[in-house]
Amino acid sequence: MKPVVDVELYDTTLRDGTQREGISLSCDDKLRIAERLDHLGVSFIEGGWPGSNPKDAEFFQRCRDLELTQAVLAAFGATRRAGIAAADDPQLQALLECGAAVCTVFGKTSPLQVKSVLRVSPDENLRMIEDTVALLAGAGRRVFYDAEHFFDGYAADPAYALAVLDAAARGGAEALVLCDTNGGRLPWEIGEAVSAVVARFSGRTVGIHTHDDSGCAVANALAAVRAGARQVQGTINGYGERCGNADLCAIAPALELKLGLRCLPQGHLSGLFELAHFVAEVANLPPDEHRPYVGRSAFAHKGGVHVSAMRRHPDSYQHVDPELVGNTSRVVVSELSGRANLLAKAEQYGLNVRGDAPARALATIKDGEARGLSFEAAEASVALLLRREQPDYVPPFRLIEYRVMTGQHDRLGAWAEATIKIAVGSEIIHAVAEGNGPVHALDSALRKALGPTHPVVTRIRLVDYRVRILDGQSATAATTRVLIDSSDGPRRWSTVGAGTDILAASWAALADSFEFGIDPVEEAHAGEHRAASW
Amino acid sequence: MKPVVDVELYDTTLRDGTQREGISLSCDDKLRIAERLDHLGVSFIEGGWPGSNPKDAEFFQRCRDLELTQAVLAAFGATRRAGIAAADDPQLQALLECGAAVCTVFGKTSPLQVKSVLRVSPDENLRMIEDTVALLAGAGRRVFYDAEHFFDGYAADPAYALAVLDAAARGGAEALVLCDTNGGRLPWEIGEAVSAVVARFSGRTVGIHTHDDSGCAVANALAAVRAGARQVQGTINGYGERCGNADLCAIAPALELKLGLRCLPQGHLSGLFELAHFVAEVANLPPDEHRPYVGRSAFAHKGGVHVSAMRRHPDSYQHVDPELVGNTSRVVVSELSGRANLLAKAEQYGLNVRGDAPARALATIKDGEARGLSFEAAEASVALLLRREQPDYVPPFRLIEYRVMTGQHDRLGAWAEATIKIAVGSEIIHAVAEGNGPVHALDSALRKALGPTHPVVTRIRLVDYRVRILDGQSATAATTRVLIDSSDGPRRWSTVGAGTDILAASWAALADSFEFGIDPVEEAHAGEHRAASW
Repeated sequence: MKPVVDVELYDTTLRDGTQREGISLSCDDKLRIAERLDHLGVSFIEGGWPGSNPKDAEFFQRCRDLELTQAVLAAFGATRRAGIAAADDPQLQALLECGAAVCTVFGKTSPLQVKSVLRVSPDENLRMIEDTVALLAGAGRRVFYDAEHFFDGYAADPAYALAVLDAAARGGAEALVLCDTNGGRLPWEIGEAVSAVVARFSGRTVGIHTHDDSGCAVANALAAVRAGARQVQGTINGYGERCGNADLCAIAPALELKLGLRCLPQGHLSGLFELAHFVAEVANLPPDEHRPYVGRSAFAHKGGVHVSAMRRHPDSYQHVDPELVGNTSRVVVSELSGRANLLAKAEQYGLNVRGDAPARALATIKDGEARGLSFEAAEASVALLLRREQPDYVPPFRLIEYRVMTGQHDRLGAWAEATIKIAVGSEIIHAVAEGNGPVHALDSALRKALGPTHPVVTRIRLVDYRVRILDGQSATAATTRVLIDSSDGPRRWSTVGAGTDILAASWAALADSFEFGIDPVEEAHAGEHRAASW
Repeated sequence: MKPVVDVELYDTTLRDGTQREGISLSCDDKLRIAERLDHLGVSFIEGGWPGSNPKDAEFFQRCRDLELTQAVLAAFGATRRAGIAAADDPQLQALLECGAAVCTVFGKTSPLQVKSVLRVSPDENLRMIEDTVALLAGAGRRVFYDAEHFFDGYAADPAYALAVLDAAARGGAEALVLCDTNGGRLPWEIGEAVSAVVARFSGRTVGIHTHDDSGCAVANALAAVRAGARQVQGTINGYGERCGNADLCAIAPALELKLGLRCLPQGHLSGLFELAHFVAEVANLPPDEHRPYVGRSAFAHKGGVHVSAMRRHPDSYQHVDPELVGNTSRVVVSELSGRANLLAKAEQYGLNVRGDAPARALATIKDGEARGLSFEAAEASVALLLRREQPDYVPPFRLIEYRVMTGQHDRLGAWAEATIKIAVGSEIIHAVAEGNGPVHALDSALRKALGPTHPVVTRIRLVDYRVRILDGQSATAATTRVLIDSSDGPRRWSTVGAGTDILAASWAALADSFEFGIDPVEEAHAGEHRAASW
């Protein structure tokens, strides 16, 4: 029994989302994402365009083994080619054969597009739409008609734009989806056009499909719902071509928490944060930490006026309770922090910090920040500071010495080599490695040294590395701050190092990263922490 | 003579923008950004909160030497503390002393905030607002009143929210700026409230200040303008606390190209792309390539249907002409515009570039960008590329070899040493130096080697050094980009290097910096370049 919703969410991450530059999802990736979308509880999952490429065809084939509990699978396609019968179009045959219950077909709405791009007569375009929808509906499919460039077409020639929708309705379309394909429209234009369509087609679902080229994709989708649209098409994290599609991670909470319209099964909204980070991880993109609702910075407060106000009243600087979307409010730890902040952090990391340990850790933080460290983006280094204050803590390794040699010759090119000597328990390990550069050589040597005793290091990847010079005046003799982001798959953490020597600073961040990543205490707690909560 | 605009853009990148987690701008950074904002032509530049920290106070001190041609400088502050006279509040004294022509003060609007956070009576809050505005206006300042949490306050208690604005107006505020501080409001709520305020305060400028927590910051600002607001506060790239502020890079084009309202001097909108990337570089943040209008992917088309349609009709899949904001469509790669850009650059540097030299330099740039270089914030490296294409150009030195050794020992600490072998004319020079770190050692060795033949190097200081990893997936083996800012006093220039080896990349940027700094042709032109124009 499907849940009853006020607004249907139609997710097209797997089709329109993959149009984003830099995304390429394998068939396995797509199946994993589909499964998680179903758990969240969207109404429809658009899996791809089976008639356009074999990868999408394979996806639908393999989907037959996927047991979806909430969502209905949709396949995408185009209206029939000009001059042939719909039944003779191989692209539509592929759509019918893929087995998806919903077929979403797009066609032209704008007279400009019909003439200059499609190069058929306006009447032939209407016949193409009606024929296509009728073929699919006649075969028992639920047909959604995506009216491409609807709003541009409606602005240029409203009568023709509505005639296009009439054609789709005559063919038997269940939903008429109005697309702002170029993303150029503003909320009030969307609202007016949607109102007109809703009034004309009272028996059918009107949908909205927006793009973010004007920075208004979310507002446009919400304006459409306010005007009567009952299906919203979008993607997780707003992935999509150019500036992206409407972000369902911003739309779902707005619908439920602000417009009072149900779009997910009750209680499922709190799965949003985790899903957003899961999809970013599978797509191999760094999560956008500033994303509305689901960014790690979305409820983070940085010192001063805001933090003190938040203590007095939690809603001072947050528009919704972050827990409703699975996110958490976070005070950014910096030299401005007090004892209470650190105690909260210790709790978050499952550490039992007693007596003057927080005061000592705080002193270390203040001292470190004076030397150029910055802990606000390096929570793993903060966790290590707290852990090292625990009486029974034994670090997994200790540095005795490293040496890095690197050079460049006008004929021989560049080279780098590092040696490292560390103590693991009572054992002294001495390793050497080459690298593409000095930090890579050091990283490789450390992995080589730790590998035999801590095989977990092979799972640790360094996913980002940033360097900042702090006191410009001293130039290359200035203090350097290095931030490293690491991941072992489910977890992601950040560490920091600082010093006048860029390699010494890199070493400090690198050593913290491995110490945090291989620490068994942390591994025992892994399950308690959400994937991306660091 | 200031240009007449329909809507004033009030940039707060240097104040609210720096609240973004991970941003920390030096005073030099802020001055460089202020100069570029002025070139773009925003109406106001908010530089900081002089009463809150010494770094902001220093900025206003140094701003006195900055000749702004378009923009007016604004300083930020709070209403007076409860229970004292406005004239006795040191924070307001700092505001008066900083010398900015505009003082923007914020105060509470929402009864919830007044009671639970400020902990004063509603009437005392009104007096605090009126007193503060009156003190500043009485001292000859233009006063803008930022009504914090205005829309939440208006929803909870419209009479009190309007009474707050009345108090600011009585005090003599020129502009009443309505803030959606928590970013939770939706466009239609903003539009209704702004309409009410505009109707009540017909003689004054009504401004809008929005945040992106609901993904609607841009739409909210535009809805406010549509309802009569005539000042928009925002930041470049939407930087700001949590999910960020309204992005002026999306708002300015919407105002000019879609609402037909002038907000920048004629022709300046096309500087937007460059400014957005410049600010990202200075802030040491990777530019968001999917940002509306100014992202590198904003007009990029990925294969298939879209590309073929774009060939038939350029507006098929773009909402505005990208050149209007200085961006380019990436399907139609224009060799011609590239060449014209380079010729303009050559002119700027006083270089006489003939024949196919620009084409060769362009090829070198494209090749370099494919390898990870980025020339947008490194104009000195671009100038060198052009110079090297001149038939009579002789570089001041040539690298034969360098070697850098560095290490760290648990008892002996860290050390670094570099040797360098260069050719100056027919002479081979071999020098060695120690340093605080490997880049400093390399820098010191190069200075030692160049000193005898080019004593000017003692005047060259490296004032900033930034490193970015480009392809996170490869972590420490990834491509590294190094940007170095240098100065010899009157001039300041930026150079770039890239490669998998951080020291080799640093070397390339360092060598360009010295080559540019000691070149006699450039010195002859020094007077023509302003300090921070690179």
